Amino acid sequence: MMTIYGDVVSGNCLKVQYVADLLHIPYRWQHVDVVGGGARASDFKALNPAGQVPAIVFPDGRVLSQSNAIMRYLAQDSPLIPEDPWLYAKMDEWLFWEQYSHETAIAVLRFRMKFQNQKIGERDPLLVKKGEKALGLMEVHLVKQGWFVGDVLSLADVALYAYTQFAPEAGFELDAYPAIGAWLERVSGRII
Amino acid sequence: MMTIYGDVVSGNCLKVQYVADLLHIPYRWQHVDVVGGGARASDFKALNPAGQVPAIVFPDGRVLSQSNAIMRYLAQDSPLIPEDPWLYAKMDEWLFWEQYSHETAIAVLRFRMKFQNQKIGERDPLLVKKGEKALGLMEVHLVKQGWFVGDVLSLADVALYAYTQFAPEAGFELDAYPAIGAWLERVSGRII
Repeated sequence: MMTIYGDVVSGNCLKVQYVADLLHIPYRWQHVDVVGGGARASDFKALNPAGQVPAIVFPDGRVLSQSNAIMRYLAQDSPLIPEDPWLYAKMDEWLFWEQYSHETAIAVLRFRMKFQNQKIGERDPLLVKKGEKALGLMEVHLVKQGWFVGDVLSLADVALYAYTQFAPEAGFELDAYPAIGAWLERVSGRII
Repeated sequence: MMTIYGDVVSGNCLKVQYVADLLHIPYRWQHVDVVGGGARASDFKALNPAGQVPAIVFPDGRVLSQSNAIMRYLAQDSPLIPEDPWLYAKMDEWLFWEQYSHETAIAVLRFRMKFQNQKIGERDPLLVKKGEKALGLMEVHLVKQGWFVGDVLSLADVALYAYTQFAPEAGFELDAYPAIGAWLERVSGRII
């Protein structure tokens, strides 16, 4: 049985949990205290030199990190990854966009507000703008279609759900994004 | 024939060029002036609402963005992507790590120094630390093996080469990383 090293306060770690649960893949959960610096501790870095959670470890010692890489590995040949090569590529596009243009604003602001007591008025204006842009792009897309890729739940939805659900904790009011709100409910109905 | 929208000053755009050239995929190159804000211009955003290069456009109008997603699409079923599922996953791990933990330090610092006249002493110390950490992690890996995944050139090498080649322009002295230096030569011997 694989072990997931992670912390449920981290959306990146929740992605792995969601996919494992959706696909009924058994796992042991090993808590790593992200806020307390557990991912940078030497025992964890012996497993993952990048010092980042989540990571999964198999009984034979193989280790895989990077939330979206783990999801892709666990979900291979499952309905969470489109068979059509073009839809597969569009899913990839969202996965890389999520890590570069979404998580880096919304997850960072949420971390500072929730765990470092930053007030909403103290938020980095560049990150606020970046987060609003990301949510705006998602809203425009979700006005047109119910899921991010094709017409079924895919890893793109799981990846984007992970931190979008916490956007209010980063100071973003989701009432301004009704299509995102409806999509969040659709996704949570499937993965929780 | 597909069109690559990009700028050769951008390592992310070069990735797409490298893969297309390696696999002899014909393309037309459409210059987008990144430094001058061309990726945020309305005509380009009509193609890619995220306002980011590179993007590829096919004659039938389909558009794909995100450098690593484009590389994966172009290189499907080629030797640049490992057939073995575990090696495939490890390649993914490096691709996501590159965009999250490498590009975000080295490409950003290089942009500021090369195009915004920032001096080496003015660099953001947090980004310098992040860049050194990324290069350090690569060095440790490359001391052990010649390519990032398995024993052949893969997309992981192409992705990491794109900005690592420019690390000196970001103020990082590569003499301190001899294994990276040898790997850069190996990769450039294959892709240039």
